[in-house]
Parts: sequence; C-alpha cells; structure tokens
Amino acid sequence: DFMLALDEVQPAFGVSQDQFKRCVLNGIVDWGPPVGDLRKDGTLLVQQVQHSSRTPLVSLLLEGPRQSGKTALAAQLAMDSQFPFVRFITTEDMIAYSDAARCQKISKVFADAYKSQLSVIVVDDIERLIDYVPVGMRFSNSVLQTLMVLLNKKPDKEGHKLFVVATTSQPTVLRQLGIYDVFSATLPCPNLSEGDHVLSVLRHMNAFDEEEMALITPALSHGEQFKTETDDVKISVGIKKLFMLAEMAVQEEKGLRGLKFLMLLGAECRRNSFQTSA
Amino acid sequence: DFMLALDEVQPAFGVSQDQFKRCVLNGIVDWGPPVGDLRKDGTLLVQQVQHSSRTPLVSLLLEGPRQSGKTALAAQLAMDSQFPFVRFITTEDMIAYSDAARCQKISKVFADAYKSQLSVIVVDDIERLIDYVPVGMRFSNSVLQTLMVLLNKKPDKEGHKLFVVATTSQPTVLRQLGIYDVFSATLPCPNLSEGDHVLSVLRHMNAFDEEEMALITPALSHGEQFKTETDDVKISVGIKKLFMLAEMAVQEEKGLRGLKFLMLLGAECRRNSFQTSA
Amino acid sequence: DFMLALDEVQPAFGVSQDQFKRCVLNGIVDWGPPVGDLRKDGTLLVQQVQHSSRTPLVSLLLEGPRQSGKTALAAQLAMDSQFPFVRFITTEDMIAYSDAARCQKISKVFADAYKSQLSVIVVDDIERLIDYVPVGMRFSNSVLQTLMVLLNKKPDKEGHKLFVVATTSQPTVLRQLGIYDVFSATLPCPNLSEGDHVLSVLRHMNAFDEEEMALITPALSHGEQFKTETDDVKISVGIKKLFMLAEMAVQEEKGLRGLKFLMLLGAECRRNSFQTSA
Amino acid sequence: DFMLALDEVQPAFGVSQDQFKRCVLNGIVDWGPPVGDLRKDGTLLVQQVQHSSRTPLVSLLLEGPRQSGKTALAAQLAMDSQFPFVRFITTEDMIAYSDAARCQKISKVFADAYKSQLSVIVVDDIERLIDYVPVGMRFSNSVLQTLMVLLNKKPDKEGHKLFVVATTSQPTVLRQLGIYDVFSATLPCPNLSEGDHVLSVLRHMNAFDEEEMALITPALSHGEQFKTETDDVKISVGIKKLFMLAEMAVQEEKGLRGLKFLMLLGAECRRNSFQTSA
Amino acid sequence: DFMLALDEVQPAFGVSQDQFKRCVLNGIVDWGPPVGDLRKDGTLLVQQVQHSSRTPLVSLLLEGPRQSGKTALAAQLAMDSQFPFVRFITTEDMIAYSDAARCQKISKVFADAYKSQLSVIVVDDIERLIDYVPVGMRFSNSVLQTLMVLLNKKPDKEGHKLFVVATTSQPTVLRQLGIYDVFSATLPCPNLSEGDHVLSVLRHMNAFDEEEMALITPALSHGEQFKTETDDVKISVGIKKLFMLAEMAVQEEKGLRGLKFLMLLGAECRRNSFQTSA
Amino acid sequence: DFMLALDEVQPAFGVSQDQFKRCVLNGIVDWGPPVGDLRKDGTLLVQQVQHSSRTPLVSLLLEGPRQSGKTALAAQLAMDSQFPFVRFITTEDMIAYSDAARCQKISKVFADAYKSQLSVIVVDDIERLIDYVPVGMRFSNSVLQTLMVLLNKKPDKEGHKLFVVATTSQPTVLRQLGIYDVFSATLPCPNLSEGDHVLSVLRHMNAFDEEEMALITPALSHGEQFKTETDDVKISVGIKKLFMLAEMAVQEEKGLRGLKFLMLLGAECRRNSFQTSA
Ligand SMILES: Nc1ncnc2c1ncn2[C@@H]1O[C@H](COP(=O)(O)OP(=O)(O)OP(=O)(O)O)[C@@H](O)[C@H]1O
Ligand SMILES: Nc1ncnc2c1ncn2[C@@H]1O[C@H](COP(=O)(O)OP(=O)(O)OP(=O)(O)O)[C@@H](O)[C@H]1O
Ligand SMILES: Nc1ncnc2c1ncn2[C@@H]1O[C@H](COP(=O)(O)OP(=O)(O)OP(=O)(O)O)[C@@H](O)[C@H]1O
Ligand SMILES: Nc1ncnc2c1ncn2[C@@H]1O[C@H](COP(=O)(O)OP(=O)(O)OP(=O)(O)O)[C@@H](O)[C@H]1O
Ligand SMILES: Nc1ncnc2c1ncn2[C@@H]1O[C@H](COP(=O)(O)OP(=O)(O)OP(=O)(O)O)[C@@H](O)[C@H]1O
Ligand SMILES: Nc1ncnc2c1ncn2[C@@H]1O[C@H](COP(=O)(O)OP(=O)(O)OP(=O)(O)O)[C@@H](O)[C@H]1O
Ligand SMILES: [Mg+2]
Ligand SMILES: [Mg+2]
Ligand SMILES: [Mg+2]
Ligand SMILES: [Mg+2]
Ligand SMILES: [Mg+2]
Ligand SMILES: [Mg+2]
Repeated sequence: DFMLALDEVQPAFGVSQDQFKRCVLNGIVDWGPPVGDLRKDGTLLVQQVQHSSRTPLVSLLLEGPRQSGKTALAAQLAMDSQFPFVRFITTEDMIAYSDAARCQKISKVFADAYKSQLSVIVVDDIERLIDYVPVGMRFSNSVLQTLMVLLNKKPDKEGHKLFVVATTSQPTVLRQLGIYDVFSATLPCPNLSEGDHVLSVLRHMNAFDEEEMALITPALSHGEQFKTETDDVKISVGIKKLFMLAEMAVQEEKGLRGLKFLMLLGAECRRNSFQTSA
Repeated sequence: DFMLALDEVQPAFGVSQDQFKRCVLNGIVDWGPPVGDLRKDGTLLVQQVQHSSRTPLVSLLLEGPRQSGKTALAAQLAMDSQFPFVRFITTEDMIAYSDAARCQKISKVFADAYKSQLSVIVVDDIERLIDYVPVGMRFSNSVLQTLMVLLNKKPDKEGHKLFVVATTSQPTVLRQLGIYDVFSATLPCPNLSEGDHVLSVLRHMNAFDEEEMALITPALSHGEQFKTETDDVKISVGIKKLFMLAEMAVQEEKGLRGLKFLMLLGAECRRNSFQTSA
Repeated sequence: DFMLALDEVQPAFGVSQDQFKRCVLNGIVDWGPPVGDLRKDGTLLVQQVQHSSRTPLVSLLLEGPRQSGKTALAAQLAMDSQFPFVRFITTEDMIAYSDAARCQKISKVFADAYKSQLSVIVVDDIERLIDYVPVGMRFSNSVLQTLMVLLNKKPDKEGHKLFVVATTSQPTVLRQLGIYDVFSATLPCPNLSEGDHVLSVLRHMNAFDEEEMALITPALSHGEQFKTETDDVKISVGIKKLFMLAEMAVQEEKGLRGLKFLMLLGAECRRNSFQTSA
Repeated sequence: DFMLALDEVQPAFGVSQDQFKRCVLNGIVDWGPPVGDLRKDGTLLVQQVQHSSRTPLVSLLLEGPRQSGKTALAAQLAMDSQFPFVRFITTEDMIAYSDAARCQKISKVFADAYKSQLSVIVVDDIERLIDYVPVGMRFSNSVLQTLMVLLNKKPDKEGHKLFVVATTSQPTVLRQLGIYDVFSATLPCPNLSEGDHVLSVLRHMNAFDEEEMALITPALSHGEQFKTETDDVKISVGIKKLFMLAEMAVQEEKGLRGLKFLMLLGAECRRNSFQTSA
Repeated sequence: DFMLALDEVQPAFGVSQDQFKRCVLNGIVDWGPPVGDLRKDGTLLVQQVQHSSRTPLVSLLLEGPRQSGKTALAAQLAMDSQFPFVRFITTEDMIAYSDAARCQKISKVFADAYKSQLSVIVVDDIERLIDYVPVGMRFSNSVLQTLMVLLNKKPDKEGHKLFVVATTSQPTVLRQLGIYDVFSATLPCPNLSEGDHVLSVLRHMNAFDEEEMALITPALSHGEQFKTETDDVKISVGIKKLFMLAEMAVQEEKGLRGLKFLMLLGAECRRNSFQTSA
Repeated sequence: DFMLALDEVQPAFGVSQDQFKRCVLNGIVDWGPPVGDLRKDGTLLVQQVQHSSRTPLVSLLLEGPRQSGKTALAAQLAMDSQFPFVRFITTEDMIAYSDAARCQKISKVFADAYKSQLSVIVVDDIERLIDYVPVGMRFSNSVLQTLMVLLNKKPDKEGHKLFVVATTSQPTVLRQLGIYDVFSATLPCPNLSEGDHVLSVLRHMNAFDEEEMALITPALSHGEQFKTETDDVKISVGIKKLFMLAEMAVQEEKGLRGLKFLMLLGAECRRNSFQTSA
C-alpha cells in the first residue's frame, strides 16, 4: 500500500517537471537588484524548511502586479530547492471544475506532499483559484477556506517538512479575505521601474538591431522616467508584458520597429501609472 | 489515438467554415478608414503568432457598439489568417446550456486547438457568453473565470501557437470584471460617423434608385452631421443596423422610400447620440 | 430524417392554430386609428421578411399597458402573415417548468422554425416568461439570455426567414435588461383614450339596450375626458378590461346596469390615471 | 381516457366537501352590513361566470386583516355557487412541499377544473402559498408566477367557465408583487368595528350568562368606541379572534368571566389600533 | 393500518417522557410570583383545549431571555396537562438535518397528534428551529412557513383537540417574521430580578454553608439592586445560569466560595443590564 | 451492540492522542503569569464537570489573537483532564467536506461522547469550522447552528458528563453570531506583551548563542516597550509566531542572526499594534 502510494506520486512528478519548465519559457533575466534580492530571501526560507524541526511548515507569498514574472519566479524557486517532491497547483489544470472538485484536487496534492519528507508546492495565482472577481467581491469561499486551512496545517508524519510558495496580484484582496496573514513570509515581485532594467532585457532578447537600439536608448536614459518628444511618464512594465510588446514591435517593417516599440511601451507605462494613481 | 483526435477535429472544422461565412452575409464593405485600419492591425498580430517563439499565445479584443460589425470583422480576420484550425465560440451554439456545460464546451474548443500547430479561435460577444445583464450586475462567474484562465494559458505542446479574437459591446463592464487587461491587444470597431460612410454603403447595396438617392444625399452631405428640415444630429449608426433600416425603407411604396429611410436613420442617430451623452 | 422532422412539426402546428384563435376570442374591434396604424406597420414588416435576402430575421415588439389587447393583436398579425409555420410561445404552456425546461422548450420552437422557409413565432408576455417581479427586480436570467440570443440568431439554412412578434407591458424593464434594443422594431398598443373609442366597442358588443346607452353616452361625449356628476377623469381603459367591466355590469338587474357600468369604468380610469401620474 | 379523468376528479371532490365545511366550523354569523354586502357582490360574480360567454374566467380577491373570517367566507361562497367542480387550494395540504411540488399541485387543480364546464377554485391565503415573509421581502417567486399565469389563463375548452376566489391579509404586498391587478374584482372583508357587531356575536354564541352580559354590554354601547374605566379605544377585532377570546374568558371561574373578556378584548383592540396607526 | 399508526406512535411517546423529564433536571423552584402566575395561566389554556368545541387548536408562546427556564416550564406544563399524546420538538433531535427533513419531521409530529383526541406538542426554541442568526437576518424560511401553517391548522378529525406550547428568547424577531401574531396567547418567562429570588434558589440548592451564605446575603438584601463594595447593579439572572454560577463557585476551596459566587453573579448582572440598555 | 460502539470509539481515540500531541509540538513554555492563570481556571472547570450533578455539560471558550497558542493550550487542558474520552474537532480533518458532511461529522463526535461517562471535546478554531470570511460576513450557517445546539445539549444518559473546550481568534464575530453567549465560561489567551516574556522563550529555545542574546536583550529590557535605534513600539507577539521568527533568524549567517531577529520582531510588533489601533 506504501508502494502504491509511491507509484501514484512518481508519474505526476514527471508531468510537474515539464510544467515548471514551461513557466520559465523565457528564462529568468537578471534585469536588476529586485531579482537577486527575491531569489536570496527565497533560498533562506528553503534552508529553514530543511533544517528547523520547530517549523515543519513554511509558507511564502510572492506579491506583484500582473505580468511581473511571479509565476516564473515561484517555479524557479521550487526547482532550485531540489526537494524530491515538487508540485504545481494552477487553475489552468482545473478549468470547468466545480468548487468541490477543485477543493478535492488541491487537498489531494497536499495529502501527497505530507507523505514525502521534503516537499514544495507552488500555489499559482490565488485570486484565480478562488474565482475572484471585483464586481460584488465574488469568490469561492470553499476554495478559500480549503487554502487557509492547508496553509496552516503541518505534515502529520513526524520529521516531514513542507514549503509552500504562492503568488498573487491582489494582495489587498487577500488581506481583506484574511488569508494574507496566514503566510509565514511575503516577498515583493515588482515591475521593471528604470530605463536600465528595460534596456538590459532588450539586449538579452536581441530582438532589435543596432540602429533600432540607438533610437530606443535615449528614451530610456533618464532613470525612472520614460521620455520621448510626446511622452514623459514613470517607467513601469512587467517582464512578461515587456516580452509581448517587443515581439509585437518586431512584426512591423524594418524602419518602423523602434518607433513602434516606444509607442507601445509609452502606452503601457501610462496605463500603469494611471492605475497606481487611481 | 492521434488519428482519432484528428478525426474529431476535422468535421467540426467543416461546420465551422459555414458558420464563419454566415457571419459575413453582407460582405465587408470598405465604408471608410476605420475598416482598413482594423484589418491591417489585425494582420500584424496574425504574423506575430506565426513568427514569434516567445509569445505562443496572442489575444485580441474587438470592442465597439452594438450592431457595428464586430462579429463579421472577427470572422473575416480568422478566415484571412489561413490557419489550419479555426473555431467559432458563440452563445448561439450553447442556448439552454448550464454554466457548467458551457465551460466544458469552451474549454474543449481550446483543448482541441492546443493539438494543432497554428490555431485561431473567435470568441464572440463575451457579455452574452457570461450571461451578463446590467440589472444587479449579474453574470456567470464560472464562465468568466474559465475565459480568463484560457485567455492566459499557453498551448502546452512546444512550438504550438494560438490566436484568440474576441468581441464585445461592453468594454467598460469587461474592465470592471478584470478580463479586459488579460488581452494582448484591443482594437476599436466604431459605428459609421460621417455622411460619406453611409452613402458609400447605400451605393454598394444598390437599394434605392437615382431619384431616391437624390432625396437622401443632401441630408448626408454635412460631414459628421445628419441634417434635414426636422433633424440636426450627429451621425452614428452601426453597419448591421444600417442594412436593417435600408431594407425596411424599401418595403414602402415607390414615392415614400427615401423619406422613410431618412426618418428611420434620423431616429436611430438620435437614439445613439442620446445614449452616448447619457 | 427530414420526413420525421416534418412529422414532428405538423401536429404541433394544428394545436397552434386553435391557440391563436382563442387569443382573439372577442375579435379585433376597430375602435379607433391606433388599431389600423398598428396593423398596417405590422404588415410592412411581414413583407420585409418575405422579400429581403439581407435581413433573414426581423423582430417586432408590441408594447402597451396591461389588458390593452397585445396578445390578440400579435396573434392576429401572425395569422394574417399566412406563413406556413406559426408558433405561439406563452408561459401558460410552461407552468411549473424549471428555468432550464423553459429554455429548452423555447429554443426547440426556434429550432423547428429554422427548418421552415418562412416562419412566424409569437413570444407572448416577455416579463411573464422571465418570471419578472418588481420586488427586488427578480427574474430568470437564463430565460432572458436565451431570448436575447434567439432574437439575434439568423436561421442557419440559407434562404430561410423568420419573423418574431413579442409582447410586453413592461417596456421600461425590458430596456433596463438590455433586451429592448435587440428588436428590429417596436410598435405601441395603447389603451382606449376617447369616449368615442369606448362607445364604438359598447355598440359592437350590443350588451346594453337603448335606454342604458342613453344613460351612458353623455359621460363619454367629452373627448378624452370621462365626466359624470361625481367623476371627471381622463379616459384610459384596456380593451380586455372593457369587455370584463361591461359583462359585470349586465349582471345587475335591469334598471341598474347603465349606472353600474359608469361606476366601474370611472373607477378603472381613476386607477389608471393614478398609476400613470405616479 | 375521459372516464379516467372523471375518476380522478370525483374522489378528490368528496374530500373537498369536508374541507369546505371545516372552514366554517362556527357558521357565518350575520354580525352587520359588511357580511351581507360581501355575500351579495360575490353572488353577482358567480352569475357572470355562468352567463357571460365573453369572460370565461372571473377571479375575485377577498382582502381583510388576519382572523377576519376570509377563509370561511370564501368557502361559503364556493359552496353556495353550486358549481359541479369545487376545489380548495391551501398551504395546509402542501406542508413541507418543495416549491416545484407546490407549483405542480396548484396547476394540477386548475388543469382538472378546465375539464369541467363550471368550476370554482378557492385559493386560500396567497401570502402563505408563496411563503411570504416581511423580513427581506422573501417569497417563492415560482409559486407567485404560477398563480399569476393561472389567474389569467382561460379554460382551453370552448364554453368551459372558471371562477377563482382567493384570500389575503396582505393586499399591499400583493400589489407590490404585481398579482393584485390580475384579479377581475376585489372585495373587503373587514374586522368587527362597532359594539353592536361584537354583542350580536356574543349573543349568538350564548357563552356568557345574563349577569356576565350585563357587565360586558356597557363597554360596547358607544358605537365604534370600546370604553371601560381603564380603556378607551376604537373597536377592531376579527371574527375568528373574537371566538378565541370568548372561549378563553369562559375558562375563568364564574365571577371573573365577564371581566376577563373585557380585558382580553381591550388588549386586542389596542394591539389592532396600534398596528393600523403604525 | 390504524393499528400500525398506533404502533408508530406509542414507542416515540415513551421516548418523549424521558426527554420531558431531562428538561426539568433541577426541578421547578418556586422562586417568586412570576413562577406561580405563569403556571396558573397555562393551566387555564389547558382547560380551554379540553372543554371548548369552538377552538380545537390553542397555541401558547413562552417568551423570556436566554437561560430563564423556558424549556423547563414548557415541559412541565405539557406533563401536567396529562393529555394522552405529548411530544417534544427540539433542534437537538434534528442536528445536521436538511431544511426539508426538518419540515418533514415537524409535520410528522403534528400529523400524529391529529390522530389523538387530546394532544400537546412542545415546540422548543423557535429561533433555533429556524436556524436564525442575527447577522444578515438569516433563517430557514421553509421551516418558518411550516411552523406558521401548522400553528394555524386545526386537527382535521372532528372533536380532536391540540395544544401547542412554544418557547423563544427572540420575541422581537418572531414579531418581525410574522409568526408572533399566530399564537392564541403569549406569556412572559422573566429572569430573577430581586435579591430574595436569588436567595431562595441558593437555599433550595443547599450549595453554600452557613458562613458562605452570611457573606452572600448582604449583597442581595437591597430589593432589585445587587450591592457589594465594587458593584451596584440591577439584579437580572436566568434560573439556568444561576445554577451554573453556583456550581462553578463551589469548586473553589472553602474560604473563597462565597466571594467567587458574588464575583460571578455581579459580572452576569452587569452583562445583562448592559444588553438591556443597549 | 454496545461492544460495537466501544470498538468504534477506541481506535479513533488512539488517533486522537497523536493529534493532541502534535498540537503541542513545542511544549507549553511558562513565559509569564497569563499562562499559569489560564491553566488554573481551566482545571477548576474540569473539576466542576467531574463533581457537579446539576451541570452535566460545561463549555469553555479560549479567545486570543492569531498564533497566540490557543490550540496548544486547549489540547493540553484536554489531556490534563485525564477523562477517558477525548476528541479533537478541527477543520484540518474536514477539508473539502460539504457543509452537511461537516455537520454530520461534528455531531457524530458528540454522539460518541454522550456514550462515555466523562468526555472532553476540543473544538478548534470555530471561525474556520464555520468557513467565516469577513468580506460580506459569509459563513456556514448550518455548521454554526449545529455547534450552537450541541454546545447547549446535555448528554442524554443520566450521570454522563461532557466538557467542551473551544478556541477562537474572532470573539467579536462570535458575539455577533450569538454563539458567544452559549458558553458556560470564557478565558483570554493573550500575546506575549513584555520583554521578559520574549526573553524567557528565547532562553528556553536555546536558539541564539551568548553573543546574539547580548545584542537582543537591550531591546527587550523596557517592560512593555520594544526599543531599538529605529523602533519604539509596544511588544505584542504570539508564541507560535515567535517560534517562527526565531527559526527564520537563525538561518542567517552567524554575525547577522541577532539583528535579523530584532528586525523581524520589530516588524511583527508594528503590524500588531497597527491592527489593534485600527
Ligand atoms: N527576472 C524574471 N523574473 C520573472 N520572469 C522572467 C524574468 N526574466 C524573464 N522572465 C520571463 O518572463 C515571463 C514571466 O511570466 P510569468 O507568467 O511568470 O508572469 P506572471 O507575473 O505570473 O504573469 P500573470 O500576472 O499573467 O500571471 C516568463 O516567460 C519568464 O521566463
Ligand atoms: N465593414 C464592415 N464591417 C463589418 N460588417 C460589415 C461591413 N460591411 C458589411 N458588413 C455586414 O454587416 C453585418 C455586420 O453584422 P455583425 O453581426 O458582424 O454585427 P455585430 O456588431 O456583431 O452585431 P451585434 O452587436 O448584434 O453582435 C454583416 O452582415 C456583415 O456582412
Ligand atoms: N382592437 C382590438 N385589439 C385587441 N384586442 C381586441 C380588439 N378588439 C377586441 N379585442 C378583444 O380584446 C381581448 C384582448 O385581450 P388580450 O389578451 O389580447 O389583452 P392583453 O393586452 O394581451 O392582456 P394581458 O395584459 O392580460 O396579457 C381579446 O378577447 C380580443 O378578442
Ligand atoms: N360572518 C362571518 N364571517 C366569517 N367567519 C365567520 C362569520 N361568522 C362566524 N364565522 C366563523 O369565524 C371563523 C372565521 O375563521 P377564518 O379561518 O375564516 O378566518 P380567517 O380570516 O381566514 O383567518 P386567518 O387570517 O387566520 O386565515 C370561522 O370559524 C367561521 O365559522
Ligand atoms: N422556576 C423554574 N423555572 C424554570 N426552570 C427552573 C425553575 N426552577 C428550577 N429550574 C431549573 O432550571 C433549569 C432551566 O433550564 P432551561 O433549559 O429550561 O432554560 P431555558 O430558558 O430553556 O434556557 P435556554 O435559553 O438555554 O434554552 C432547569 O434545569 C430547571 O430544572
Ligand atoms: N505557553 C504556551 N502556550 C501555547 N503554546 C505554546 C506555549 N509555549 C509553547 N507553545 C508552543 O507554541 C505553539 C502554539 O501554536 P498554536 O497552534 O497553539 O497557536 P494558535 O493560537 O492555535 O495559532 P492559530 O491562530 O494559527 O490557530 C505550539 O507549538 C506550542 O507547542
Ligand atoms: Mg502568473
Ligand atoms: Mg456580433
Ligand atoms: Mg396578453
Ligand atoms: Mg384564513
Ligand atoms: Mg431552552
Ligand atoms: Mg490554532
């Protein structure tokens, strides 16, 4: 019966590996200090799980705006831990599930984890898992409660340890729902906010040629400010969005690409600064 | 089992073709610059899907007033892409479905698409798919969440690409629901707003004779203004509505048709200007 | 399989005929201009359906106060069209149905209609079909959405045409629900509002004798005003209510009938004027 | 199959007779003019049903405060009609039924009635049938809608007639729900409001002896006012309540009965006057 | 089949007896006038049920604060009636029942009662039976409606009589829900409110020795006021709570008991006076 | 059948023992007077259950902030009672249960307890058991009602006694829900609030070496105030959180541990003082 349990766990693990890799499709570019800070703090928590007998359960919440790279960073942290049991909980695998089925599946993943000595579970996009929608503050209370209880439940076998890494773009909502305080620790996962951040990503992508970079660079050489003849706005763009904008721009014909990118980036920064001030 | 999958997909594809054609029953009349702009921008996104390996999923939202031609334009864009897998998701095929069945069907279409290397899915009239009604802001949250997750989920087979084109006449509502920001890009699909726009459609329809056109033309020769002895109002009419009004007018007996058309068009423009100002 | 479809449709058609006739139990009395106007405009739309290839679906909404004769006029219009497929959708045939069953039945009628080349469907009393109640603005959203989609869905066979005639006594509510704008056209079905209107119905009914008419007539000889010694109020009574009041009055013994009718009519007009002003 | 239908109907009819009689357990005491008025007007409507071919469905609503005798009067009216088919719809026979079952049962009674040429149905206590509760204005919308449709649906066999008598103690609520206006006519069923009304009931009951009546009478000899040394309040008591109070009083030992009755009646009138003024 | 019915009823009756006795575990202490008054008025109603043929159903509501002894008094009244059929309806026997099951069970008890010539049913803690909670005024409307109908439904066999005794600590809520007025009579079941009331219970309990009583008595010798060096507050404590406080106090070691009791009683009185004034 | 009952109970009991021990994973450190007070008062109640025949059911509520050690203290109290039947009710054992299943399971535990002469049940984290969430004040009313009834239900076998110990971090909410007043007694379970409290825990843990303690101690030598160069805030930290913070700090490399701990503790105290003042 123990053998059986192992059998059940193994193949799922294989599937998981693929899933983790797809999350970091474009790698982890080291675009600035926030990237290194987050990875270092995360590693300390991984150590705590391994070494402390008093805290067999440690949970971490990565919070940041949409498209800021939360999922990729959570996945990378999980893979780096080298724990023998890693799992990914995401709504993408539970589309069209009833609330009850979703609770079942989530609690099954945790139950499997308790059987392993060292486990890490990524819980991606909590607001999506609980079907949150701002209109009327709707959400699935049963999934929320399931998560709250599991985030506070120690593995029941002595010596077994569990690390949970969750992500969210709605920290305020999670606070209102009372799930925010359940985490052992939280770390910020911010947008790129300086011209140099953006430039280092563009260079790494190698999407634009010399000439185009020459056109783009001046607009991004004013620290936290994006400056063109028509725009002057604080820089704020998520790493995932930045990849999308660059790829859109390069579809234009040769001469227009640099300009198109500046136009798209300016609009994105304006939208983000508007949402922050609102 | 791969063969089977193909079998399942093919016939549905055949059905889809017919459905796409019915959406453009009256063709795509090039009544003014907005038509060409929208088609060009759409084509660029199609290219991005084909060529970029960093963005395997691109999604576009066409937003415009009721009857402005959104469905026809989305269908045309999909057909023009020449992608081997095209599908149409519309509430018309899911009447009297439960929420759960609707989620199932939608996610089935996406699952099929992931199996094809290049796919395009039209998601028509999002507000209808989620059973939105303004009174009490009611809507199906489960369908909404299903769409939100699918619009953010990359095909899981490496190298497979997906293009999603959605339509809506309720962009403000979609923004409140948090689904608006999930799209890679949005494009406007406006009403006809100048006399020349209307005249070029009437000419293309060939519904009125010389004499009738002579009666109609003066009212439509003041740029954005509709002017008759009794009316002076901004021109605003959707292409689909315009076809309906013209066809109603021509049922009248010979001498009265032109007048009837002006009367109907005037009432429509008044209604639309009223709704905008309200 | 086509034969089968025909079989299914025919008998139901027979049933429908009876139902249509019961709706005009007391005929269509030509009590004034509004009656003729409505019937003429309705006929033009019937022609459009028959002749236009660009608008295979035309929908009409008859709106008027309770008991104003909406159902009878819609049924008459449908019978006059002489279309081979006519159907009546009414809550009376769906009592104690679940929402889902109601949606099924409605969509079945439309599905049958699509199979016929020329069809007309009467959708009676939309507010009743959607279980509308003003307290708390309750209604069946699933039935509403089903209707909204069907009122916008063209027959899928090429060349097939469909005419839908719906009725309502709650146009304001339908507007709030967003279904009002879906109709191709709307026509008013008003109450009787002049003394002559009422007198012509009484004469047609032949319910009162000479003497009684002599007593009644003076109160109804002041245009839009109902005037007796005790009453002076605007005339407003639905044709269906008028039949009910006249029949109540004639139960009284000989000498009291005329007076009783005036009393009942006065009370009704007061009630209606009160509701309008409120 | 017609035979079968008759079989189904007959036994239920038998049961009904008993039920009708239990409703008038204490007879119909003619305590004042309102009793005679109501019975006469009711009889006229019975005649209309029998004689008018233009109004095959007539419906009457008896409205009055709690315990005012509504059920007894509705039952008596139905029995007096001598129609071959009489039925009683009351929540007492549908305790612990689901909404759906309740709708089924109600519509079954109406369906049976349509088969008979002359039918009368008593629909007792509409607010109870729809599970109305003032807190949060809760009620069963499905039962409400079922009633609204049935109260407006003519028997489908030609020449068949139906009379519906309903009762309510919540006319204001019924008006808000939109079911009030569906009735052909409404009649008031008031509380006893004069000393003579009360005295004539007490005499009819024969519950108090000479001496006791001598004590009671003075308090009830001031028209609409109840006057004792401690009380001076408008008289208002339902006939059903009055029976209860008198029976309570007579349990006291001999000398105290008259006083106890006055005390109980005074409290009841105070409560009622308070509720009216509130 | 009649035999069967009897069989079903008998054993349950046996169970009921035990249940009734457990409700008066600590007897009925005659701590002051309110106890005798309530028992006498209750007895009169029992007589009415036995003797009146005009009121085959009489219902009584005992209303008082939490822990004031309502359940014990209702149970005692039922046992004293000596009616052959006595039953106890309490949520304690319906834990984890669905609403529907609860309605079924309640109506089954009443149905059984109708079969017996003289029956008494105790309906304990109405607010608990209907799952009432003040937050959002939630409650089970189906159970409420079931009770409202049953409290107004006469036994259907001629000559059969039913007495219902219900209890509540939420009379205001019952009034808002409209069930309060359905009762034939209501009686108050108050807290102990004078020092003498408390002292007579303590003496009856015999929980404290002479010395301890000497310490306690002074604080309770000021009529309605509880007075110690630190406290001066109106006396208000339920009989059930009083038993609990005395038992808690006697767990302390010898010298501290009297003081502990005063401390606990003072706190309770403060809490109650606070709730009343709020 | 009695044997069977015992069988059912025994094994579950074994499981329970383990569960109780896991709750006090880090023992019960006597960090200050509140710890001793609570344990002494709890013991008195245990005695009352054993000795009083008048109060066969006694219930206690431990109320304190999150992570203050409530669960551990409740578990310890239950184990100390040495009662033959001990059980633990926690949401952790009912994840993904429906409301109904949860009610079933809870009432099963109580039903088992009634069979034993002396029982203690720990009901952990009431707000979690009822799925409470502050947004919209949502909770499971059926679980709440089940608890309210069970907390007031005496064992039905004569002489059997039950002690219930519950915990909550939401006493205000429980008061609003009306379950707070159902308990026989409540005891506070506070956060550590003085420097000495914290120091005595750190010493007991032995997590920091001499040097590190020398750095930490000054900040904690100002009574209720936490003072560093950058911080001056009231001390408030739960015992469970304190263990977590200390374990996090010791992951840092040697020289940084003391500082890290001060930083983490300062942030926690600030957060708590903020929440109290808000
Ligand atoms: N430093 C980085 N941090 C995170 N992601 C990075 C970084 N550098 C490159 N990437 C790439 O950026 C993308 C980040 O996308 P990801 O899905 O993680 O964003 P997200 O914040 O989870 O978005 P969403 O809000 O839509 O869930 C991935 O493709 C990842 O490979
Ligand atoms: N330039 C154009 N753009 C769009 N549609 C056009 C154009 N020219 C002609 N048409 C015709 O106009 C009609 C547009 O109808 P369509 O259903 O697309 O409108 P819609 O905006 O989707 O309406 P609805 O708001 O009701 O969904 C089609 O019959 C199409 O063939
Ligand atoms: N000119 C007329 N228009 C409509 N109905 C007429 C006319 N003349 C006579 N009638 C008769 O009046 C009655 C109208 O009733 P109908 O049921 O159509 O009213 P309605 O407005 O649908 O009422 P409700 O609001 O209750 O649905 C029918 O019996 C019909 O035969
Ligand atoms: N004139 C009368 N009108 C009505 N009922 C009368 C009259 N005289 C005597 N009664 C008796 O009074 C009682 C009236 O009770 P009934 O149940 O009809 O009242 P109700 O208004 O329906 O009460 P509820 O509001 O509780 O439904 C019956 O027992 C009936 O026999
Ligand atoms: N005069 C009395 N009246 C009522 N109960 C008494 C009296 N004297 C002693 N008792 C005892 O007091 C206790 C009353 O408890 P009971 O359960 O009836 O209170 P309750 O008001 O129903 O409480 P709750 O509000 O919790 O339902 C019983 O044990 C009963 O034996
Ligand atoms: N004096 C003490 N009181 C309580 N717990 C203590 C004490 N000393 C040490 N501990 C340890 O502290 C931890 C307290 O955690 P516990 O789960 O009881 O907190 P809690 O208040 O129930 O938290 P939560 O609010 O998350 O439910 C346990 O590991 C326990 O062994
Ligand atoms: Mg993500
Ligand atoms: Mg469209
Ligand atoms: Mg009608
Ligand atoms: Mg009644
Ligand atoms: Mg009680
Ligand atoms: Mg706890």
